[in-house]
Amino acid sequence: MIERLALIGVGLIGGSLAYALREAGYIRTVMGAGRHETNLKDAVKLGVIDRYTSQPAQAVKDADMVVLAVPLGAVRAVLTDIKDTLDDTAILTDVGSVKVSVINDAQAVFSGMPERFVPGHPIAGTEKSGVHAAFASLFKDRRVVLTPVAETADTALMQVRRMWEAAGAMVETMDAHRHDRILAATSHLPHMLAFALMDHLRALPAPDEVLDFAGGGLRDLTRIAASDAVMWRDICLANQSALIQAMKGFQCEFSRLQAAIEQGDGQVLAEVFQRAKATREGLPL
Amino acid sequence: MIERLALIGVGLIGGSLAYALREAGYIRTVMGAGRHETNLKDAVKLGVIDRYTSQPAQAVKDADMVVLAVPLGAVRAVLTDIKDTLDDTAILTDVGSVKVSVINDAQAVFSGMPERFVPGHPIAGTEKSGVHAAFASLFKDRRVVLTPVAETADTALMQVRRMWEAAGAMVETMDAHRHDRILAATSHLPHMLAFALMDHLRALPAPDEVLDFAGGGLRDLTRIAASDAVMWRDICLANQSALIQAMKGFQCEFSRLQAAIEQGDGQVLAEVFQRAKATREGLPL
Repeated sequence: MIERLALIGVGLIGGSLAYALREAGYIRTVMGAGRHETNLKDAVKLGVIDRYTSQPAQAVKDADMVVLAVPLGAVRAVLTDIKDTLDDTAILTDVGSVKVSVINDAQAVFSGMPERFVPGHPIAGTEKSGVHAAFASLFKDRRVVLTPVAETADTALMQVRRMWEAAGAMVETMDAHRHDRILAATSHLPHMLAFALMDHLRALPAPDEVLDFAGGGLRDLTRIAASDAVMWRDICLANQSALIQAMKGFQCEFSRLQAAIEQGDGQVLAEVFQRAKATREGLPL
Repeated sequence: MIERLALIGVGLIGGSLAYALREAGYIRTVMGAGRHETNLKDAVKLGVIDRYTSQPAQAVKDADMVVLAVPLGAVRAVLTDIKDTLDDTAILTDVGSVKVSVINDAQAVFSGMPERFVPGHPIAGTEKSGVHAAFASLFKDRRVVLTPVAETADTALMQVRRMWEAAGAMVETMDAHRHDRILAATSHLPHMLAFALMDHLRALPAPDEVLDFAGGGLRDLTRIAASDAVMWRDICLANQSALIQAMKGFQCEFSRLQAAIEQGDGQVLAEVFQRAKATREGLPL
């Protein structure tokens, strides 16, 4: 049970977490902080948060749980801001899609990793953003990866785990570097493909005529290209090396496929497509 | 109204067309032809076709409308097979995703393009295949592109147009080369991305652990990677040059994105993502 949750960033992820914890009866009050007052006012009206402030340093006062749900590029500034007003016993966690960069930020700001900071990443989301896109079941049966480091206190890890379980998620722990490599392949690379494809088609001659012929496949493939641009800029910068490695690996595969088409090698094409089909059909639900 | 439809290939597309035309009361009888007897038997049980034969040449006897719904690689052999038994007044059309290759096949088999052959492509489908995946509303409000050539008779074009309109589709005509270039960009390239991504992830070390973290984005992006391998092998071979051009264009865009990440150029990244988001949100429904 959380007495006072400080939610820094009240968007799709932060808002959905507050909704879910309220529904579970797991939080008493929620103090929101953010940069856009309209969004915060709406969040109060929607019942996501009880009160708000524009100052993260104010929001964390007397909080027993602090959740950072801001773009990765804002993490260091927020940590710097809340450092001096954070309660000694408060648990701190985040929801960023990259974990090594968050750990680096925390180490820099606190001169070493605080034992009560548990880096986390809920693998859930939609292409929408803002508190109006939030909903209580977003994390139901979805994975949340926590990436504690050597300094992390077991009690802090336990409390963050319980919070996510109360929100309906399945929690597991993992090394931060491994998390970043896996997510580069399964999430960050696919987003780059969707963004690049959409921007490529836009740049063709007479794009409107071309896009008129968008079928269901293109529509599904590019759904995530409507994701928030700032959030994804920050993910790219924060997970630079793992993402570049994933993009290079994909380019190799794509070039091999292109060569098989150029050579008219039907056997290789059928093999690649058959393997891809089997892999897709075997994806865990 | 079609008295006797010969359906060569009774899968997702052919089966859905027969369903839709039956529902519209637009056909009296349907004779199916295909290579897999189990599928044809099921098609009779489902009420998609009335009778079947393994011989396309048999199926087209006395048919007033012949629809080829086979993979592109089978078109030439089927045309050769039916050439001598085809009724002089029968209208002939196909549903292939590439049109120039089909026209070339017809010209080769008939020593010139027959005036009653109307090349066509319904822009509809799912990642599933076989008659069990067919459903009557597949073409409802979807586009069907017909690519008549100089030789095509207006009456033949009109009859094929009416058939698709009876099935609920919106019909338009277009030059075959233009069709193939547009579809290379909007459909064939996206399928290559989905196939290549799926095969790339499968080839990573410990793919099961990686794919365990597949989120909704990866799932949507790779839905079409479960499409039929033979059909897509044939599309690649039939639309080779337009597809290669589309793949090269995409690789340029993707390399530019990769360079921006390597250089940590947040401004370029935010611009690309913002443009992609706007383009995606502007896609016609």
